[in-house]
Amino acid sequence: MGPEHIINMKGERGMMRVGLLGAGRIAGVHATAISSHPKSELVAISDYYPETAQKLADQYGVAARTTDEIIADDTIDAVLIATSTDTHSDLIEAATAAGKAVLCEKPVDLSLERARSCLKNTANSGQPVMIGFNRRFDRNFGALRAALDAGEIGKAELLAITSYDPAPPPIAYIKVSGGLFRDMMIHDFDMANFIMGEPPLAVSATGTCVVDPEIGQAGDVDTAVVTMTYADGRIAVIRNSRRAGFGYDQRVELLGSGGMLQVENMRENLVVKSTADGIVSAKPVLFFLERYMPAYAAEWAAFVDAVTEGKPVPVTLEDGVAALAMAEAANRSLEEAKPVRLADV
Amino acid sequence: MGPEHIINMKGERGMMRVGLLGAGRIAGVHATAISSHPKSELVAISDYYPETAQKLADQYGVAARTTDEIIADDTIDAVLIATSTDTHSDLIEAATAAGKAVLCEKPVDLSLERARSCLKNTANSGQPVMIGFNRRFDRNFGALRAALDAGEIGKAELLAITSYDPAPPPIAYIKVSGGLFRDMMIHDFDMANFIMGEPPLAVSATGTCVVDPEIGQAGDVDTAVVTMTYADGRIAVIRNSRRAGFGYDQRVELLGSGGMLQVENMRENLVVKSTADGIVSAKPVLFFLERYMPAYAAEWAAFVDAVTEGKPVPVTLEDGVAALAMAEAANRSLEEAKPVRLADV
Amino acid sequence: MGPEHIINMKGERGMMRVGLLGAGRIAGVHATAISSHPKSELVAISDYYPETAQKLADQYGVAARTTDEIIADDTIDAVLIATSTDTHSDLIEAATAAGKAVLCEKPVDLSLERARSCLKNTANSGQPVMIGFNRRFDRNFGALRAALDAGEIGKAELLAITSYDPAPPPIAYIKVSGGLFRDMMIHDFDMANFIMGEPPLAVSATGTCVVDPEIGQAGDVDTAVVTMTYADGRIAVIRNSRRAGFGYDQRVELLGSGGMLQVENMRENLVVKSTADGIVSAKPVLFFLERYMPAYAAEWAAFVDAVTEGKPVPVTLEDGVAALAMAEAANRSLEEAKPVRLADV
Amino acid sequence: MGPEHIINMKGERGMMRVGLLGAGRIAGVHATAISSHPKSELVAISDYYPETAQKLADQYGVAARTTDEIIADDTIDAVLIATSTDTHSDLIEAATAAGKAVLCEKPVDLSLERARSCLKNTANSGQPVMIGFNRRFDRNFGALRAALDAGEIGKAELLAITSYDPAPPPIAYIKVSGGLFRDMMIHDFDMANFIMGEPPLAVSATGTCVVDPEIGQAGDVDTAVVTMTYADGRIAVIRNSRRAGFGYDQRVELLGSGGMLQVENMRENLVVKSTADGIVSAKPVLFFLERYMPAYAAEWAAFVDAVTEGKPVPVTLEDGVAALAMAEAANRSLEEAKPVRLADV
Repeated sequence: MGPEHIINMKGERGMMRVGLLGAGRIAGVHATAISSHPKSELVAISDYYPETAQKLADQYGVAARTTDEIIADDTIDAVLIATSTDTHSDLIEAATAAGKAVLCEKPVDLSLERARSCLKNTANSGQPVMIGFNRRFDRNFGALRAALDAGEIGKAELLAITSYDPAPPPIAYIKVSGGLFRDMMIHDFDMANFIMGEPPLAVSATGTCVVDPEIGQAGDVDTAVVTMTYADGRIAVIRNSRRAGFGYDQRVELLGSGGMLQVENMRENLVVKSTADGIVSAKPVLFFLERYMPAYAAEWAAFVDAVTEGKPVPVTLEDGVAALAMAEAANRSLEEAKPVRLADV
Repeated sequence: MGPEHIINMKGERGMMRVGLLGAGRIAGVHATAISSHPKSELVAISDYYPETAQKLADQYGVAARTTDEIIADDTIDAVLIATSTDTHSDLIEAATAAGKAVLCEKPVDLSLERARSCLKNTANSGQPVMIGFNRRFDRNFGALRAALDAGEIGKAELLAITSYDPAPPPIAYIKVSGGLFRDMMIHDFDMANFIMGEPPLAVSATGTCVVDPEIGQAGDVDTAVVTMTYADGRIAVIRNSRRAGFGYDQRVELLGSGGMLQVENMRENLVVKSTADGIVSAKPVLFFLERYMPAYAAEWAAFVDAVTEGKPVPVTLEDGVAALAMAEAANRSLEEAKPVRLADV
Repeated sequence: MGPEHIINMKGERGMMRVGLLGAGRIAGVHATAISSHPKSELVAISDYYPETAQKLADQYGVAARTTDEIIADDTIDAVLIATSTDTHSDLIEAATAAGKAVLCEKPVDLSLERARSCLKNTANSGQPVMIGFNRRFDRNFGALRAALDAGEIGKAELLAITSYDPAPPPIAYIKVSGGLFRDMMIHDFDMANFIMGEPPLAVSATGTCVVDPEIGQAGDVDTAVVTMTYADGRIAVIRNSRRAGFGYDQRVELLGSGGMLQVENMRENLVVKSTADGIVSAKPVLFFLERYMPAYAAEWAAFVDAVTEGKPVPVTLEDGVAALAMAEAANRSLEEAKPVRLADV
Repeated sequence: MGPEHIINMKGERGMMRVGLLGAGRIAGVHATAISSHPKSELVAISDYYPETAQKLADQYGVAARTTDEIIADDTIDAVLIATSTDTHSDLIEAATAAGKAVLCEKPVDLSLERARSCLKNTANSGQPVMIGFNRRFDRNFGALRAALDAGEIGKAELLAITSYDPAPPPIAYIKVSGGLFRDMMIHDFDMANFIMGEPPLAVSATGTCVVDPEIGQAGDVDTAVVTMTYADGRIAVIRNSRRAGFGYDQRVELLGSGGMLQVENMRENLVVKSTADGIVSAKPVLFFLERYMPAYAAEWAAFVDAVTEGKPVPVTLEDGVAALAMAEAANRSLEEAKPVRLADV
């Protein structure tokens, strides 16, 4: 199935018909992106909880169905998978087998082994499969990458990614999240791959629990630094914290042979107040919805282009597996207190 | 006609039906805002050039009609006037007389006298009439005003507005624009009124033509400084230039008894590049569409609230006349080389 | 007397021997600059109050004398006049008549007429006379001027100078200060001349008293905006306030045909604090001593170069008279509520 | 020997008499600090090359002597050791044995073992011994530390130090430098100790040679990331590069439980230029002399206070040994590709 299929099936307007699997918060973001794009049409929504699916479906004036029904529906061209992580691999396989293009939320899976088997099982499906690393579509990180590609700072040497959430999620979420590296830093692993152009050779992780002891009791860390080395000598370092008292901190800094590129935080507004207490600028925008909403729309547009125009999928299932492997290596490095080679996970 | 009317006429969803008069660039911006708002529905578009109206109407799947037809249509609740300035007063009068709410682009008129008669003629219409000073709805200027109202810098003392366009418009536009004060600085006059809470007592203008001599030959200035004084001793100063080589410069700075508030420029992206040439940040976003697109949507939402919920009109026809009077005073001050009292225009 | 004289008189090391007239706060600043410079030597200090002179003289291990003695001392090559303003003209005349080079604090005089007669009376003295507009020697304003001269923003079009003191001086000082334009804005008038390269054609002043009514009762304004026009169409605008709640605000902004140059404030330190209350940078350095201390040293070095190496005096008595004439025009403009031509004062 | 000694020996003015060992570039910086301080007096300078000593001595009008002579001179109260690193330990021991206070440039030694024996050998000397980690006296880092101590961001959690030189030193220097960790990052190790209040438990180093292959051939790295863990769970990470194309990059960033503190770079000037190419600020000041000159003076003042007023030595020989141990651990970590505990070096 490809662009011709869609055009044939839909007639003149060539709309891509989309089923949305999952109806939680991030699914709502995607529902807006799907509905707003001139070439895609949201037609059905499913969820583990039918009433949740119905509620979102009503909001968008579409049908609530079961996931099986959506996958079995031949008039649906693509599915967006926004279900719980443990279902991702199965759904990717089922949807591609049913001839559907897939955009799947990150991470591919909590199990690296399962993600790899999913990759293998779908390798010959002929369907576009894209992983939802939305930050690649943020125009700021895109501008950094473009400046690097244009040679504006020479050759990359040392990458530093800072990524702090405003506040930790509930402990219940922590417990099923797969841990900080697979749940939170996976975005930064992919960002590193996006900027550096390839995965690292080895990963060295340091982690601690200083934000909330309950996170430690749940077996996770809340603050971590991961250093990565590359075949050609480059280095990357990622800092994560589950809590930055001032908001959502999303910065990237790349030192190159001829200079440095930085992406600063986006502020809530452009007001600066000067009083006897100092010069006060607004805080960073609160969290990922505020920060990355345009990136979600751009991500969807890129997926539509890949499906309807045959353009390359910008974030592949391989990319998803690579980031997951880095998380796995980080977990093992943290446990064994030594660098772990990606080739060994 | 009021909210009840709309609800009765529309049934459950209570959609406000809107006719768009004018189909040029800024009309396109409004068409998007009208269509995107959950409580308003774009139903018809007119233009001096029927084919222009048809083109925009097709894009939004609505009808192209004549202006007279739209005004005569009792199923239409409100009109947005985005026609040429010389038609504004007539259309405001006709639309309100036909029982329609009105949102009219700035300026009300090029003639202060005509704007005043329009104000007089519509005073008893009972229809909400709002003037499109979109910058009041920019969240940054709104945050400045909110901080002032909250007493964060004490009492206002000295206001400075800087407003530079990236490049001058075509000379043909300059010739029919009504001049810099009525065409460009009128936004800043209204911004001053928004922040200071009242019009000034007197206006003192300095203007020159240093950007392009053709602008001077067309009888206009391209660079100007206007100083205004208020009844309670406050001062405001506005700087305008038709050309800032680096983009669209839109800043406001207010010194108060306890500190200062500034609104800085919005940059194209958050990338900072450091090389041997210096530390380079992105330029301001190019022009008013990039800078104020969210403000247009917020402006429309405020109008919808005023019409459907009976909230106060946030920018009244009186406000539009006040800004025009300031432009008139500035013109006279420039001509006579002395301060001109608003009471004298 | 010139460099040869100094070298002859001093022998090999060629030290310029300097008498300091006045021993107040600003005299102390100059004493440090004179003593620290490798080619100048502070030898005597006088003051209206002998004990004040003695105290400063002790601090620097030099002699306290009367002003007359210093001027009569043939072994003294130069005097720095840091006495009260009403004595400046007399001392400039006396010192130059006695064959001494002069660096005199601003303003030349409170009386424009007297300043002009002083200029006339010393025109043929053959002695270097420099006026202490220290801000010309601030490296930031110097870098702005250098960038302008290098054509980095094309041709100057619109200059804006912002100059706010942290807090008003005592009313007693206000009463003898000569008023805001001669006491405070005179620095900005000279800065405008430094950047624009020539005095304006006309000056238009707006002033008010919103900071402290006692200042108004003393016959002065505490907040003012002055707009100036130039022969070639350029415009400059100066904003002054006696009180900025956040500290000493010293900014310059120049719009040119190809871009804009700005000098930002110097902050107390480079720390930025991000908390739930916002992103807080340090305030501007408190006042002129913190902000301009290096400029005072650079000013002295330029004077030494002018005296010992025959380099041009960088800020002449003519410059001092020009700034005073602008203050006079501003006063008259404020009084008459209309622009005043410099040629008419 | 203590403050009484100095006062007794010197009489009323209580000047501390200082011998300067070494006459290279950094010795010149110290000579200025010593001479400018009101309570200290530079009396003699020595160097391995007598003519170098003579040259600097002439500049300050003091005697050039041998190091032995200076140490043997009972009228000299203190020595500043700015000789080559391999002589530091010997000179510290000799000078303290001779009853002199010591301020010694960093690092204490290239050999951790020798530094430890020096510490042991001087433990009972009764003389103040201070190590020249000048950055502790930078007012910006001091303000960060003060804000932390005042609880402004709660408890420290994650420290990130960025320290890039503008360009690598000559290969000849690299070869005798002791390597990046002992020569360059040692400043950052001490800065971490200054901010975190104690040395870390373990050090994990990643290093590479991407700037210049000759540095690698000399057995050193030119780019490195070191992660450190603390007993209470805190983490610190240091980034070093021998080359930042834009200048000297000296930043510190500390995430705490309630916010974040950052020290930004000091810029060459406060000019911002806006053109079609972007918004350009000045580069960071070039190198350590420009950046830290005031810190050298403050360092000397703190030493004078320690010697003459019996105040605690702010950077002790223990501090110097601690930083050296961290460098040693980093070297071993780099070699063994695993974290190294400080207790194991």
